[in-house]
Amino acid sequence: MSDEPSAADEIMDGVYRALRAHGYADATMQDIADECSKSKSLLHYHYDTKEDLLVAFLDHVISDSERRIAAHADDPPAERLAGFIGWFVFERQAVDREAFHIALLELRTQGPFNEPIREQLVRSDRLLRGTVVDILESGIEAGVFRDVDVEETAALLVATLDGARTRQITLSGGADDAADGEGFGRDRSDDSSPDDSSPDDSSPDDSSPDDSSPDDSPSGTFDAADRPEPTYTRAVAEATLRRIVDPLLAEGVELPSLEVGIAEMAPEGGGRTENGDADE
Amino acid sequence: MSDEPSAADEIMDGVYRALRAHGYADATMQDIADECSKSKSLLHYHYDTKEDLLVAFLDHVISDSERRIAAHADDPPAERLAGFIGWFVFERQAVDREAFHIALLELRTQGPFNEPIREQLVRSDRLLRGTVVDILESGIEAGVFRDVDVEETAALLVATLDGARTRQITLSGGADDAADGEGFGRDRSDDSSPDDSSPDDSSPDDSSPDDSSPDDSPSGTFDAADRPEPTYTRAVAEATLRRIVDPLLAEGVELPSLEVGIAEMAPEGGGRTENGDADE
Repeated sequence: MSDEPSAADEIMDGVYRALRAHGYADATMQDIADECSKSKSLLHYHYDTKEDLLVAFLDHVISDSERRIAAHADDPPAERLAGFIGWFVFERQAVDREAFHIALLELRTQGPFNEPIREQLVRSDRLLRGTVVDILESGIEAGVFRDVDVEETAALLVATLDGARTRQITLSGGADDAADGEGFGRDRSDDSSPDDSSPDDSSPDDSSPDDSSPDDSPSGTFDAADRPEPTYTRAVAEATLRRIVDPLLAEGVELPSLEVGIAEMAPEGGGRTENGDADE
Repeated sequence: MSDEPSAADEIMDGVYRALRAHGYADATMQDIADECSKSKSLLHYHYDTKEDLLVAFLDHVISDSERRIAAHADDPPAERLAGFIGWFVFERQAVDREAFHIALLELRTQGPFNEPIREQLVRSDRLLRGTVVDILESGIEAGVFRDVDVEETAALLVATLDGARTRQITLSGGADDAADGEGFGRDRSDDSSPDDSSPDDSSPDDSSPDDSSPDDSPSGTFDAADRPEPTYTRAVAEATLRRIVDPLLAEGVELPSLEVGIAEMAPEGGGRTENGDADE
């Protein structure tokens, strides 16, 4: 019985890696079993279907987000808000994190057709908007924020940050952008990938030149080939601070730093949560 | 030769209906052929693979958006901006439009793995951000907007509106929410759906009570069971006008109306574009 939680955690790590490698639609129970070194029959003992397992995984990811949010509940409200915004910043080297969020986005498209999945998405939406509401209410009480419509602000912030993330991950060049590294490309073949359980978020391949032709490479602001450009999520996070958060601040309160916010919500290091910090 | 464009348009209508009914992953060439009353071999004559056809469809949808944006290029800048924002508002009865956008969102998750799809997504992103930049630059020149960072504002607006749409469509109860109507539910079985080529965006089923139990129905702000609540996209569009657009306006310029904006970008009536106004 004392082994059970650990086995469940190992299975969840396997789901995470299988989603990253194969995506939602293509990941099989066998892929997940392979990724956590369990037997497929053990998985089926605990979870009747792939859908059941993925709903349990969403529950696990959202519970993890709840814990991370709760750990900062007593921080100063302006810093908490910067932390919330920084949480949605994906830097260029966050290849695994992007791959995982693409799989989650696939999963999200099942919401309208799958009630258990939709319930988790609704729970995640409540968590995210509720967190912003809580931060704003604490800040208003503390005199740090002006007396704004907290529900409206929460919806605006969550939509903005989610939208920036969706645009960044779907517009990403994936494996091309990630140069020679493990990259964004999925292992779509059946020869299973080598064990990639070690976190490699700090991949050094980021600075490699992009070899796509000029005509191919987007000339937009955020995805230009010259790398000093911020990512879509970083650009929008900075704009959010200046355009949405700054007007919320009470007279004399300093705009919190995005860098501090990013550092605040960064994982403690190691393990699945390094990349699997997703909200939904 | 003079028939060719018409056949192509019919095929594109078939793709639209097949995506709406089956989603991206599940729609087959046969489904598309059925939806446009063509033979599968004719489709394959023009398009080698389903992927080729879907890339052509994305091209078609984005070109349509380009035309609709161009048709308003000479409107007053503040109204154009309200029109752009209103374009992303999905009312509760927009069941077909939501179903179509869920399929597009599925398609978007293929961007990192499929260069031709990604090229269309990049093109769409440039169109959307470029449109906002153009509106802002015209407005600054006309003295309607303050001299703001247009690129930053464009990225913020597009992320916000896209995020609101993604959240609304993925959190939607689908067929449940749509009561007895054709609804959001996909026809996942093989018995093909009746001809639904007539636009029914103004479905009267909207006012039907939601029969889900209180525990099931989200208690959040936007998806509460009592229908006077605005949709996620409408709530965020209103917040966007007040929080992001209002501070852009030059002294004395009145905030444009969202209702006027929604009406401005509404389709001229009939046909696929009624719902297929999507950007990507």
